[in-house]
Formats: sequence, structure tokens, C-alpha cells
Amino acid sequence: MKMKQALLTLTATAGLLAALPAAAQFQKPEDAVKYRKAAFTVMATHFSRIGAMAQGRASFDGAAAAANAEIVADLAKLPFAGFVEGTSGTEKGSPKANVWSERAKFDAGAKKMQDEVAKLAVAAKANNLDQLKAAFGSAAQTCKACHDDFRNP
Amino acid sequence: MKMKQALLTLTATAGLLAALPAAAQFQKPEDAVKYRKAAFTVMATHFSRIGAMAQGRASFDGAAAAANAEIVADLAKLPFAGFVEGTSGTEKGSPKANVWSERAKFDAGAKKMQDEVAKLAVAAKANNLDQLKAAFGSAAQTCKACHDDFRNP
Repeated sequence: MKMKQALLTLTATAGLLAALPAAAQFQKPEDAVKYRKAAFTVMATHFSRIGAMAQGRASFDGAAAAANAEIVADLAKLPFAGFVEGTSGTEKGSPKANVWSERAKFDAGAKKMQDEVAKLAVAAKANNLDQLKAAFGSAAQTCKACHDDFRNP
Repeated sequence: MKMKQALLTLTATAGLLAALPAAAQFQKPEDAVKYRKAAFTVMATHFSRIGAMAQGRASFDGAAAAANAEIVADLAKLPFAGFVEGTSGTEKGSPKANVWSERAKFDAGAKKMQDEVAKLAVAAKANNLDQLKAAFGSAAQTCKACHDDFRNP
């Protein structure tokens, strides 16, 4: 019993410590919300430029695709620190409360997206439209999966 | 030598991105405004975390300083593409019309800031608070210089 309790305490403490840096990074919850929205805005801008090439709305430019994909991969690491407790909403585009009640699933979705955009950044360097299309499609699916589950429509 | 090479790489990358046709990248002027504000928001968030350490409001953490400085250096390349024609304003924080009438001066200020935050990213890797303070101060001056000249107070 004592060991179980010690483990629970350790786990709780570890969880607390892991949670602390992210929340402590922002003075106010509104700052965290503004930050995560901003990071998504920058990321989406560059991701959509790759999408335009992948979907034939813009002519393929390998160097531009690679530059955009690198920015997306860098930015993809940032917004999730902004999902601090107490910042769910009900309006269109805001995160639903299950971001926090299902945080492990949410974090796994974020990780999957980060992995896919990292692959996209590698694929984009190949200067090959078919490879870009495939990698863009996989990355876009990870966006949609999370939005379907966690974002107010 | 390594530091010099890192700086050269950072500068070269910034140059490449700056060469992309700015206006063609945004569908509407409002998109450009939203984008540049977002890029500045993300950049300022991470820059201010370094400032907190440099100014003694937060305890010095070399690894955190380096991570934040790298994000600042990456983000610093982005917002200027969003200063497309016809997006000046008069309200607090918006760009004055001289951004466009004195564009060469504006661009030189942007370049100076990018250079200083690239140096900050290198300095932050030294894990030395005095070096961080000096590099932060130089970078912060480039922010202020441009804001004084081109931003509505």
C-alpha cells in the first residue's frame, strides 16, 4: 500500500512539474490564447501555400515548398504550450473542453501532426511534386483529425 | 569559426525568404496584416522570456534562453512579407505610412533586427548571463528604433 501511495505521489508530482512550465510561461490565460492563435495563423499561412501547389492552385516551386515546409515544421512545435487550463470555449474555432479532459489523446494528435509536418519538410526538399502531394495529404489529415475531435465547428 | 558559419547560414536563409515575392503571397491585404501581427506576437512572446532573464525578473536558464532565442531568430524572418502596400493605419500599434514611403530605411531596420537576433541566438548558446544580457540589449534596441520611426504610438 505504501509503495502504491508513493508511486501515486510521484506520478502526481511529475504531472504537476510537467504541467508547470507551460502554464507559468504566460502571465494571463488570454496571453496563452493569443499566442496559440498566432502560432496557428503563421503555420496555416505557410501550410496553405504548400497546399496550393499540392492541389494545383499554384505552380510548383520546389524551393518555395521547402522554405514553407521548414517554417511549418518549426511553428508546429509552438502552439500547444498555449493550451493552458481554463481556456476552452464554445464559439467557432475555439477548443472544446475535451482538450483538457482527454489531454493524452489531444497531445498524441499534436505529436502526430508534428511528426507528419517534419516528414513534409523532408519530402519538400526532394523537389518532387508527387512526393510533396503525398506528404501534404498525410499532414493535412492530422490537422483535420484534431479539428474534428477538439475544435468547435 | 562555427559561430561565424552559423551566422552566415542564418543570414543566407533570411535573404532567401526575403526574396520571395511578398505581395503575391497573400490573397487579401487583411491576410497580410493578420499574418504579420501573428508573427510578431509569437516572436515577442519568446523575446520577452529572454528579457525576463536578462532583466532579472526570471531566473537564468541557459537552455531555455537558447531555445527561446532560436525561435525568435526563426520568427524574425517572417513578418516583413506582411507589410504589403495599402496596409498602413493610424491606430496605436499600426504601421505609419512611412513604412512604404521610406521602404529602404524600413527594410534596413528589419535586416538589422534580424542580424541582432541571429547574434542573440548564437550568444544564448554560450550559457552565460552577461553575454545574454548584452546580446538581448542590442536586439531590443533594434526593435525600439523601428517602433519609434514606423509604428503609431
